[in-house]
Amino acid sequence: MFKLIKIDKNTKARRGVVTTAHGEIQSPFFMPVGTNASVKSLTFEDVNDTGAEIVLCNAYHLFLRPGLEVFEAAGGMHNFMNWHKPTLTDSGGYQVFSLAKLRKLREDGVEFQSHIDGAYHFFTPEKVMDIQQSIGADMIMPLDVCAPYPCSREEAERSVYLTTLWAKRARKYFLENRRSDRNQFGFGIIQGATYKDLRERSAKEIIDVDFDAYAIGGVSVGEPVKDMFEALEWVMPFLPADKPHYFMGIGLPDQIVKAVGEGIDMFDTCLPTRFGRHGTAFTSRGRIIVRNEEFKTDFGPIDPDCDCLVCKKYSKSYIRHLLKLKEITGLKLVTYHNLYFYISLMRRIRQAIEQDQYQSFMTEFLTKYGSELK
Amino acid sequence: MFKLIKIDKNTKARRGVVTTAHGEIQSPFFMPVGTNASVKSLTFEDVNDTGAEIVLCNAYHLFLRPGLEVFEAAGGMHNFMNWHKPTLTDSGGYQVFSLAKLRKLREDGVEFQSHIDGAYHFFTPEKVMDIQQSIGADMIMPLDVCAPYPCSREEAERSVYLTTLWAKRARKYFLENRRSDRNQFGFGIIQGATYKDLRERSAKEIIDVDFDAYAIGGVSVGEPVKDMFEALEWVMPFLPADKPHYFMGIGLPDQIVKAVGEGIDMFDTCLPTRFGRHGTAFTSRGRIIVRNEEFKTDFGPIDPDCDCLVCKKYSKSYIRHLLKLKEITGLKLVTYHNLYFYISLMRRIRQAIEQDQYQSFMTEFLTKYGSELK
Repeated sequence: MFKLIKIDKNTKARRGVVTTAHGEIQSPFFMPVGTNASVKSLTFEDVNDTGAEIVLCNAYHLFLRPGLEVFEAAGGMHNFMNWHKPTLTDSGGYQVFSLAKLRKLREDGVEFQSHIDGAYHFFTPEKVMDIQQSIGADMIMPLDVCAPYPCSREEAERSVYLTTLWAKRARKYFLENRRSDRNQFGFGIIQGATYKDLRERSAKEIIDVDFDAYAIGGVSVGEPVKDMFEALEWVMPFLPADKPHYFMGIGLPDQIVKAVGEGIDMFDTCLPTRFGRHGTAFTSRGRIIVRNEEFKTDFGPIDPDCDCLVCKKYSKSYIRHLLKLKEITGLKLVTYHNLYFYISLMRRIRQAIEQDQYQSFMTEFLTKYGSELK
Repeated sequence: MFKLIKIDKNTKARRGVVTTAHGEIQSPFFMPVGTNASVKSLTFEDVNDTGAEIVLCNAYHLFLRPGLEVFEAAGGMHNFMNWHKPTLTDSGGYQVFSLAKLRKLREDGVEFQSHIDGAYHFFTPEKVMDIQQSIGADMIMPLDVCAPYPCSREEAERSVYLTTLWAKRARKYFLENRRSDRNQFGFGIIQGATYKDLRERSAKEIIDVDFDAYAIGGVSVGEPVKDMFEALEWVMPFLPADKPHYFMGIGLPDQIVKAVGEGIDMFDTCLPTRFGRHGTAFTSRGRIIVRNEEFKTDFGPIDPDCDCLVCKKYSKSYIRHLLKLKEITGLKLVTYHNLYFYISLMRRIRQAIEQDQYQSFMTEFLTKYGSELK
């Protein structure tokens, strides 16, 4: 599944290739979030045009709507949404804990009410594998218990305990029930909240289950950025070099640049699309709020350093006008630019690693971006 | 400005070319409505991909937001919105009467409050020319008085009287104040509501002013379809053959097909985009509501006879899913298809006229579409 091509000379940044049933992905890479089988405000032609090589969708959302019978009838998510490159589905663990009502955590699974119609559902590790096999992503995640922030030691311990227990059950079930019409890889998720020994324990236990790849979960849940990178620092020494490393839900551009330098290969966040819909654009010099008055007659592009379709064709003045009037097209233009910014950032990251220049790339990027990270 | 290429042998359908400073438009043609300098939910790349050759925007809306100073600074609307093909702006007459608050009709113009912030404005025929010269469309409309439906004879008479009075003032002002940085054609608008003699009087008076092209206004204001075509029937004999004929705000696909057969060259309506945003699609067999349950596992295209990007790539099942979840992309996909449907309908109309087959084309289209028109 994963081939490590090289490691940067002066940092831990890694250059690799992930191979799936729907093609290769050059790592490190960013996964645009398409929660409901749609990267919000974009078509898959747009997503493809940005250069994205993979899309992440959400098993919890897709299980509820349109429902598994639609994926079975369509022959899987790729056919359903007409995206024939790699995909990953999140297990729904995070959504059950963040969106669902009346969550009831039990030793054998989690009971919850749908945030849409209040219907009761019971997710077990096995059921979540079944769901993701129906949906048919190339990479799937096990049901885990995502500890919140802040989180008591007791709660964090229970999260680690159940996450490992469920990881074993999920992996066993997955290996014994592979479907001939799907070709999927399974990830393990490491929890442990902000406790060093729990992070280390979770890392050891999850790696011991022997997954195809590993994800650091329970981050980007509201904790300070310092804590996020601490979790990374504690866990990284345990991760096997020959498998992909995924920092779940991370993050802002400067956080991604920083985390790549620590050896992370995979990222996802809804920030480029969410910020896009709110009219905030990512640029090489940091974020700008395009609807601001200052751009009323600014006929320059969102980012003079960007060569995306939007920056080549549309001005801040025009996009600001659309945003002020709540025109859908305005949201789309900023979203497209933002996603392109992320995807082309990853391309530049990969080039820097290939040239053993990651340290200087990181310094230059963070300085120009105005980042507080260093 | 207009070259009449041929008239169909068995109907009054005309095939022509309109030439503007931003290129040619093959007639009969449909103008996608981009009220706020945006065809709702589409980019201009999308609009171009549908094959559209012209876009219609609204002087009333653009005058209020972003305001004329932005168009002057941008060097006109084409630069502002990055659409370098032909454009037309409506005068704002219709919007003042349909959207604005506290309208006060005077002999010399109309006073109204903006529907956005309640600010007072006074539009005269001359001011509306100035506004449209600032905005810079290739074709511009004079300020008229759009009579409502139903409408008393007295009100209709006053509408005809003021429309002619203002048409003369607008034309005089336009000819005496042409801007060297704009190259524009001016339309006359015929009013008269549902009164035959008033329609005829308005037609004669407006044609007497000698505009570059003529529009039938005060239609599609809520009247029965029969009345709409009656107004057309009354006015058409007066329109000069060597100038374009524009049926304002019309209409549904079968109405367009019918009106072309009566000698109309230009159409506009927000229906393809508005219906698109409500999830209703135009097809060769009539309209379908894509979000309906019946399409849940229907993996066929919106219209099997359509070769647009959406019909080639996306299923009713997927689009229905997006619409149910209020995903912006769903609105975009249906809107794109709808606009393509209109534009390709016009292409087929032109081909039928070229081959002197318009009568049979009309019969076949109306039958398959399930139209009540004949």
